[in-house]
Amino acid sequence: MIIESRNPVQRVLMGPGPSTVDPRILRAMSEPTLGHLDPQFLKIMNECMDMLRYIFNTENRLTIPMSGTGSSGMETTFVNILEPGDKVVIGVNGVFGMRMADMAGRCGAQVIQVEAPWGKPIDPADVDNALAKNSGVKFFAVVHAETSTGVLQPLKELADICKKYDVIFLADTVTSLGGVPVDIDDNGVDVSFSGTQKCLGCPPGLAPVTFNEKASKAVKSRKTKVQSWYLDLSMIEQYWGNERVYHHTAPINMIYALHESLRIIVEEGRESRFKRHKKNHKALGDGLEAMGLSLIVDREYRLPSLTTVYAPEGINEADVRKQLLEKYNMEIGGGLGVFKGRAWRIGLMGYASNQANVFLCLTALGNILESMDRKVDKKAALEAAAAVYSS
Amino acid sequence: MIIESRNPVQRVLMGPGPSTVDPRILRAMSEPTLGHLDPQFLKIMNECMDMLRYIFNTENRLTIPMSGTGSSGMETTFVNILEPGDKVVIGVNGVFGMRMADMAGRCGAQVIQVEAPWGKPIDPADVDNALAKNSGVKFFAVVHAETSTGVLQPLKELADICKKYDVIFLADTVTSLGGVPVDIDDNGVDVSFSGTQKCLGCPPGLAPVTFNEKASKAVKSRKTKVQSWYLDLSMIEQYWGNERVYHHTAPINMIYALHESLRIIVEEGRESRFKRHKKNHKALGDGLEAMGLSLIVDREYRLPSLTTVYAPEGINEADVRKQLLEKYNMEIGGGLGVFKGRAWRIGLMGYASNQANVFLCLTALGNILESMDRKVDKKAALEAAAAVYSS
Repeated sequence: MIIESRNPVQRVLMGPGPSTVDPRILRAMSEPTLGHLDPQFLKIMNECMDMLRYIFNTENRLTIPMSGTGSSGMETTFVNILEPGDKVVIGVNGVFGMRMADMAGRCGAQVIQVEAPWGKPIDPADVDNALAKNSGVKFFAVVHAETSTGVLQPLKELADICKKYDVIFLADTVTSLGGVPVDIDDNGVDVSFSGTQKCLGCPPGLAPVTFNEKASKAVKSRKTKVQSWYLDLSMIEQYWGNERVYHHTAPINMIYALHESLRIIVEEGRESRFKRHKKNHKALGDGLEAMGLSLIVDREYRLPSLTTVYAPEGINEADVRKQLLEKYNMEIGGGLGVFKGRAWRIGLMGYASNQANVFLCLTALGNILESMDRKVDKKAALEAAAAVYSS
Repeated sequence: MIIESRNPVQRVLMGPGPSTVDPRILRAMSEPTLGHLDPQFLKIMNECMDMLRYIFNTENRLTIPMSGTGSSGMETTFVNILEPGDKVVIGVNGVFGMRMADMAGRCGAQVIQVEAPWGKPIDPADVDNALAKNSGVKFFAVVHAETSTGVLQPLKELADICKKYDVIFLADTVTSLGGVPVDIDDNGVDVSFSGTQKCLGCPPGLAPVTFNEKASKAVKSRKTKVQSWYLDLSMIEQYWGNERVYHHTAPINMIYALHESLRIIVEEGRESRFKRHKKNHKALGDGLEAMGLSLIVDREYRLPSLTTVYAPEGINEADVRKQLLEKYNMEIGGGLGVFKGRAWRIGLMGYASNQANVFLCLTALGNILESMDRKVDKKAALEAAAAVYSS
């Protein structure tokens, strides 16, 4: 058996994640591996927690990266809070809301779904209704940034409703953390999880989570064991806390990468970073519309890190993506669920959220659609994008 | 907030894992991140599966790395096979047997423990007994290489007993895979899990698992949903198989590292690799004994990848480890459980299993013990080790 070495090309990663990784972060991954209880590593862990608190914008003590990809963060919040028979309300308006409902069911919870059409946010009135009708609900969960639809869900009003009914408020910030303000404390979010490969601009492999006192109390007052040993926070907390009790061997080099990505965020400053994401998103969206394409989401709910756009009728959207990959080294995502075969998902996350990528994407997409005999206004697209940058 | 960049020193990692990582593997981690459905990445995934089959020495189709550290591999095998009410027998002679019993309980299984003293292997007669007394047992699980005690458990006889009772045989190969033959098919192991940071010589972060037809059938014929969404093989199989259905975003750069570590293994050849581990282990063990120290495990059950040795009476073993780290940049492990404060665990795994490390460890340990006014024969230690290499 002869297996040649890998030579992965440098793609422009503009799908729903992973996003292109800053070479600084890639270099961090190849630093010498330390032991998981080495004093040098413990310092790195502490700094990661501090910097995660900065980007989550929270004072929550329990703010750590879990040793798995984003979905393991989702599972962490669910298995640690839920016990069999608990009632939960979940907002479902895309793939990740569905995934949360699935996970809650696996925890033995009774799941009440509050639905909205794909591409629309969850209506707070529906949540209020569901909580008024069902007493003793343990938490309400919603996706802040639905990666399957490109919807940015406003959080504040939902948090207020949860407070009214004394229900824990859980928000999935996988595709927002690091690119869009999540403001955990100010928004009244009690518990949240994210992933490294989106707006943090890291490779996939870790899932930052944050629990406030209210959420931690729910974990501490459980009557049953957490069904997952691997994700059991009562033990993991003692490794990340001052006790430093061994639980599992942390993914050391991935944590170097997270540390470097967070350092980059601190250097840039979170406000500047959010502004950058917003501006590049606007340039791309305006460009796509000027080209003649239609965005899925209404302007006020558009997610700065991920733009969803309908493919022109009759186009084989997968073929367009294939050409983008082969001719331009660019990856964008296809539609999921109700948008499968009908839409694209174009990410501008972390390091990949930049002006060059916006112009390249508009140009490449324009060229390919034109080669398929579609009328697109490439000039107008580039001008619309440029107007955003010069304003 | 100003956080300085990390500058982790190059440690000699001779603890129970992580082990020192080959610079070739560290470099692989910093290759550009590809999308998890990129054709270039799919090829890397396929090659990883092929090479994992080589080192597991199995034809099992379902042989993949799970997206978490070793314990997530343990949990994967348990949650996918077990359903509430199932009966399991677990061999417990150290920390990792205890961990398996804990996990089985969290799956709602009825756990029957077969115990042996720490530092001794599980007695096959006890397993036969337990299976004779308890009908309808779903699996018997044992630790092939107990990282807490340094015992190598012979597998063949246990496999035969499991066959006799038509019980699935599960072996934890976390600290053996890549350093000690595991011979999954020849040994009659039905399902196994491992980790990357031991004898595969990779950073921590992935958990290779392998299921044969018998074990896969148990997964496929379940009546209930797997309690973990993140570790549910029925979905993950469709991503690693030809369907390529998205489940979660794989930890791309960690998989580059695994790929490179497996390439190194294929180049070296598994037999040469096992011989190397055995020889270095013998040199270290003979050296420690010649120095005047006592090993915990009887010669025939000693684990080539991890040597356990009693600290001299009255010595503060943690202080010795601290000095090793500070003066020699060398990490070794302390005792766990019944050996806490009384023993050291010295790993020689993967890239770190080499002659230089053996001599350095004997020298460093000898010097430190001498500085603590202990009589140790440093000369005899080095001569005993050298004799192994010259034979």
